[in-house]
Amino acid sequence: MKNDKPIIYLDNAATSWPKPPAVWEAMERTMKTSAANPGRGSHQMAVQASRVLFEARKRLARLFRIGNPNDIAFTLNTTHALNMAIQGLLQPGDHVIATSLEHNSVRRPLEALKRKLGIEVTYVATDSQGVLNPAKVIDAITDKTKLIAATHSSNLLGTITPIGEIGEIARSRGIKLLVDAAQSAGVLPIDVAGMRIDLLAFPGHKGLFGPQGTGGLYIDPNLELEPLMQGGTGSKSEAPEQPTVRPDRYEAGTPNTVGIAGLSEGAQFVLKETPEAIHARELHLTFELMEGLQAIPGLTILGPDIGIERTAIVSFLLDGVDPSELAFLLDQQFGIAVRAGFHCTPLGHETAGSYETGAVRASPGYFTNESEIVSMVEAVKEIKRTLHGGRS
Amino acid sequence: MKNDKPIIYLDNAATSWPKPPAVWEAMERTMKTSAANPGRGSHQMAVQASRVLFEARKRLARLFRIGNPNDIAFTLNTTHALNMAIQGLLQPGDHVIATSLEHNSVRRPLEALKRKLGIEVTYVATDSQGVLNPAKVIDAITDKTKLIAATHSSNLLGTITPIGEIGEIARSRGIKLLVDAAQSAGVLPIDVAGMRIDLLAFPGHKGLFGPQGTGGLYIDPNLELEPLMQGGTGSKSEAPEQPTVRPDRYEAGTPNTVGIAGLSEGAQFVLKETPEAIHARELHLTFELMEGLQAIPGLTILGPDIGIERTAIVSFLLDGVDPSELAFLLDQQFGIAVRAGFHCTPLGHETAGSYETGAVRASPGYFTNESEIVSMVEAVKEIKRTLHGGRS
Repeated sequence: MKNDKPIIYLDNAATSWPKPPAVWEAMERTMKTSAANPGRGSHQMAVQASRVLFEARKRLARLFRIGNPNDIAFTLNTTHALNMAIQGLLQPGDHVIATSLEHNSVRRPLEALKRKLGIEVTYVATDSQGVLNPAKVIDAITDKTKLIAATHSSNLLGTITPIGEIGEIARSRGIKLLVDAAQSAGVLPIDVAGMRIDLLAFPGHKGLFGPQGTGGLYIDPNLELEPLMQGGTGSKSEAPEQPTVRPDRYEAGTPNTVGIAGLSEGAQFVLKETPEAIHARELHLTFELMEGLQAIPGLTILGPDIGIERTAIVSFLLDGVDPSELAFLLDQQFGIAVRAGFHCTPLGHETAGSYETGAVRASPGYFTNESEIVSMVEAVKEIKRTLHGGRS
Repeated sequence: MKNDKPIIYLDNAATSWPKPPAVWEAMERTMKTSAANPGRGSHQMAVQASRVLFEARKRLARLFRIGNPNDIAFTLNTTHALNMAIQGLLQPGDHVIATSLEHNSVRRPLEALKRKLGIEVTYVATDSQGVLNPAKVIDAITDKTKLIAATHSSNLLGTITPIGEIGEIARSRGIKLLVDAAQSAGVLPIDVAGMRIDLLAFPGHKGLFGPQGTGGLYIDPNLELEPLMQGGTGSKSEAPEQPTVRPDRYEAGTPNTVGIAGLSEGAQFVLKETPEAIHARELHLTFELMEGLQAIPGLTILGPDIGIERTAIVSFLLDGVDPSELAFLLDQQFGIAVRAGFHCTPLGHETAGSYETGAVRASPGYFTNESEIVSMVEAVKEIKRTLHGGRS
């Protein structure tokens, strides 16, 4: 059946798709006319490439209320940004607080530094719906706490972390705050000054509608990180050490100019539509999906109840059906793209009580339409009927 | 004048341009039909994205005679690959041998590890044309030498390093060899087994005709590196540490699927044309350029003499003219894109004796034509005449 009808794409939490046409058009234009090395030459194409990057930085700065666009460093993906932040900041003896919802892109770098540098990490448990009690964060603080690392929204449950409150707690105690905005950038309001965020890691290819291979890290101007990579920057070439000027310090080597040209248009699309409107649309679709799914007997939705704000993520379990099998059947029989498994967050699954099974995650996007939501719900019902051998 | 005629692009050593049409077409196709997360989902689009990556790995493996395509990890750029190799291999007390031609993408990571871990580095001097005497490498070896890091071809001089000989020297002594193939990949024959290369760092966006934002590192199957970044891999999600399976171990986070789709077609183009034919064509253009330029009184070309094999790089100085001014005039008055300055290799400029001035670098590519070479030579003559206030 899969070749007969268009794909219903409900995997936007992994990569948003499709993209606004302007994203694609900017990539084509850049590839064909100005994909030289930004910042390395003075010729027209190199200058134009530099402009592409700076324009992207300006738009992202506007979106996240960042004062100086040069405090944003472009990265390969959010994982790169998170590693740059975590490895660049922490020293032996430091203590870090994270949450029980963290993705492996936060957990694994922290665990590696536990082994390598002897840092200590406390994962503050949320409740099973992913709700974080800020008092528990306060309780976890020690005199060695250097960093609080928190996902802005769980990639499994959709639950939204009260970053503003965590930011106040951190700032008043001189602790740095790193926010993993993998699921929130472009969708939830982010104000690095207002929310007291020192480090903001974000993807280009999800809520910002850019292509894969893009992402970034905002670094507070008063915060100095040891660069994750050293190399050519096109500035202070004569110095054997990485220059201190931003963004060069954190952007060694040739950047992904074509990808960033696309990201720039994606950010512009978000600025124009507004994160509020995008979030409202996605929340509407998410609640429609939850309403349809929770009417199916034996189906359990993880995370906050319907009506409570979340990002566009609906993870669920169906009694007696392996999540991988369910995802496989949705794909093969109905052309519906969802994701089964652990979603790179075993911590999240422990929190939600789904560690033994994993789950199926359906994530609508801004371009999903209501009929696709209906098709998804009907498909799950149909699979349930078929697997149970009759029309119950 | 710059808006009246097409750009003459002689900055291929920074980024090759234009690209074969298939590169762009593959990016467009991938962006529009299959840019989901490879390896993270079982749905059609994710499977298709995984295929894109594996096909690219297979083509690159064929090009570099790598036995197992999964021994190639994709990176943001060559700098990322070099940092992965250098930071992932070296331990306190290690000694490294590099050459006096290294780019900052090798030098700066080494200098950072000198400060951070106390490693020692010996930069073996080449002669002023960039020719490396392997005997000097042997002389530099100590019982602590863990790694030899060598550029395959100087990004300033075009000189070709005898990697095969260096590989024999390294392998027979149990020393690892890291090759920076920034200027050679796609142009010079590379055979990791035959040349005894343990680590090969290569760009996607130069001689392989891929877009910026792509590159890779080949890691010998018997060599284990500490990953530069940890994060989600779509495999063994339940483990708090990075999985050992390749390429996942060295590719945390979402890859640049669209860019790699382009790189794959670039690699295919190189395989079809053959590096030998590409190099022969580029060498022909390079010698034409050198012949034209060296006939200009007061102009000095750096690196090997005409007739001696090199990559398509012609760096030069013109008496009494600042290289930056010359590059500026070439761009503004003639629409010719070259690069002035230090080319991220102060070591190379020290070697060539151009450390005080920098140089102008013109780098033809496979798509450069003879008339563009003639225009470049005539433009330099014209600028010289104008600056000297008369027709000499």
